[in-house]
Amino acid sequence: MSVTTPKGFAAAGVTAGLKPSGKPDVAVVVNQGPDQAAAAVFTTNRVFAAPIKWSREAVADGQLNAVVLNSGGANACTGSEGYADSAATASRVADRLGLIIDNVAVCSTGLIGVRLPMETLLPGVDAACTAVSTDGGASAAEAIMTTDTVAKQASVSVDGWSIGGMAKGAGMLAPGLATMLVVLTTDAVVDAGALDAALREASRVSFDRADSDGCMSTNDTVIAMSSGASGVTPDAATFQEALTGICVDLARQLIADAEGASHEIAVEVIGAASERDAVVVGREIARSNLFKCAIFGNDPNWGRVLSAIGVTDAAFHADELDVSFNGVMLCRGGQIGEDRSKVDLSERYVRVTVDLHAGHDSATILTNDLTYDYVKENAEYST
Amino acid sequence: MSVTTPKGFAAAGVTAGLKPSGKPDVAVVVNQGPDQAAAAVFTTNRVFAAPIKWSREAVADGQLNAVVLNSGGANACTGSEGYADSAATASRVADRLGLIIDNVAVCSTGLIGVRLPMETLLPGVDAACTAVSTDGGASAAEAIMTTDTVAKQASVSVDGWSIGGMAKGAGMLAPGLATMLVVLTTDAVVDAGALDAALREASRVSFDRADSDGCMSTNDTVIAMSSGASGVTPDAATFQEALTGICVDLARQLIADAEGASHEIAVEVIGAASERDAVVVGREIARSNLFKCAIFGNDPNWGRVLSAIGVTDAAFHADELDVSFNGVMLCRGGQIGEDRSKVDLSERYVRVTVDLHAGHDSATILTNDLTYDYVKENAEYST
Repeated sequence: MSVTTPKGFAAAGVTAGLKPSGKPDVAVVVNQGPDQAAAAVFTTNRVFAAPIKWSREAVADGQLNAVVLNSGGANACTGSEGYADSAATASRVADRLGLIIDNVAVCSTGLIGVRLPMETLLPGVDAACTAVSTDGGASAAEAIMTTDTVAKQASVSVDGWSIGGMAKGAGMLAPGLATMLVVLTTDAVVDAGALDAALREASRVSFDRADSDGCMSTNDTVIAMSSGASGVTPDAATFQEALTGICVDLARQLIADAEGASHEIAVEVIGAASERDAVVVGREIARSNLFKCAIFGNDPNWGRVLSAIGVTDAAFHADELDVSFNGVMLCRGGQIGEDRSKVDLSERYVRVTVDLHAGHDSATILTNDLTYDYVKENAEYST
Repeated sequence: MSVTTPKGFAAAGVTAGLKPSGKPDVAVVVNQGPDQAAAAVFTTNRVFAAPIKWSREAVADGQLNAVVLNSGGANACTGSEGYADSAATASRVADRLGLIIDNVAVCSTGLIGVRLPMETLLPGVDAACTAVSTDGGASAAEAIMTTDTVAKQASVSVDGWSIGGMAKGAGMLAPGLATMLVVLTTDAVVDAGALDAALREASRVSFDRADSDGCMSTNDTVIAMSSGASGVTPDAATFQEALTGICVDLARQLIADAEGASHEIAVEVIGAASERDAVVVGREIARSNLFKCAIFGNDPNWGRVLSAIGVTDAAFHADELDVSFNGVMLCRGGQIGEDRSKVDLSERYVRVTVDLHAGHDSATILTNDLTYDYVKENAEYST
């Protein structure tokens, strides 16, 4: 159940010493082939980190042999020196593993605006390259954790081929709470173009619909690599379904471990005139601090849901809106519905359903509540 | 220093019993003329409360004789019955004071989705109408408080005429944390059209640039009334300057008393290609929970400022951005500048300056930090 579940992949996670805690902080995932197809999606933040610039160029030709990842520093807002540091990291992996530097992607996560201590990082890269093994997936997943409390992994096997994945971050692709890094591997035979299309579609309905705190990271990256080692070429629909499943699974794990969260919230918008409208409304609700605080307080405050819907440009009439909490319709036709006392929010999982009564499209945004612990973690993170 | 500072106005604030605390909860402000010019701006939320609908219609002809305001209930999402309650409230004021019902505006603030207890409210309206006096401004300001810890009032006198004002809420016009209600009075001779133009311009650069938590209320209202009782007709520029000054003063008081805030933050954006760009960038920073948590933790985390700038469509190049905290340029040209240790954020007031190096326009957004107390107040507000 890791990035080394599919055949043709090796990985490792080691401690270089970037983190004061002494926990693992450098990971390498290697595609041993025979194929080397790759695709990636990156943060859309216009202020992006040096490794984003490096990896965009590395994956541009649809080929990657390895990804090197570090926690303990984002290497963002570090200028041309920071870019040289990313290049040096990729170069070291290429040297140690006999690869071409342009086929090595780099991911970094941690504090923005601090140079990476290369004298500490590079020996860690050496150690990770030495340690790579076909059962090293779990150690790699552990080495990319920052404020994560658990490592996130997933895998699926279908008709002789499989997909594996790991993720870190308490957030999402766009926007991201903390940096989200995801590496996906498969031994299915999938060319770079098909992999790219499948990855974009899977990300759109998974990571792009997880919204922890509305803040977009400078470093978010999702990379997919195919080794083709199974020798099996799946049909496109089957592969898409499996890849989307893995991405949704990882997105749920990210939200479940979001910083300080005490509730996981699925905001389901139905009856929308378009899927875009459903996403816009769901995201606006998921970003309302007032709504998120209410859930933390076990308060089914549907008025805060309506006030969030009201700032969007989605198609709806205010006097047709229905809002349910865990299946109890507290607001019917924009007015008072069932009594609030019928809703119990003491469980961790909360489902809020909004019916716009404007069409037949729908979307679900995953988010979490706003808690004392969120404030604490983010007030103290860099100090 | 209140709404009764200008000549021709009377006001009162009384306890009807809408709040469990037993604090004052109903206010009336009466324009005794000779003029009755009025203008107003309202929330742009598409889910708006019954009193918004009522007051929009009341002020449409540029005339108001009185405003009645209640805390202890927003009368939002209450359907046609809620609208009838607003009408009944205006009707009672008109009866008691011998006015035309269409010249009475209504403002409500409190929990969304609950009917107002009219059997409690109407006797309070009677009492307020009986109590109105030309020195009742302070009591009116007190009666509109909800989570406010202090009453907000301001006034200015210029060449024989004056402007007075009161405000409640820990937020802003658009968006609003809690409902923001503002009543402005003047004894200057200003017709309704001129008053409307002046009010819109003053709101645009004051209440519209205060952004406490990015959430827009269903009830936000700013009403201005002119009695003309001074007999003085000021020139437009002088009146504009005075009105804008009062609005900026009240906006600052609102942010200073924002729910749970421990820092007041001025986000100043300079070097923008347009005023719109400056506002967009400032607002995005002011809405970043990560940035707001960092300030709570006295952490000058400029990386979170850059990542917020990066999601906007404003004109800038990432490698030209300068960011200063309290005058210390921590980020210069998109990279590491002065050392963070040179910034002391222990004082309540924080100034963050962003230079986009893209033009000559600027704007300042007022906001506050995200604290344990914000979460606490908003997790417990309705329970």
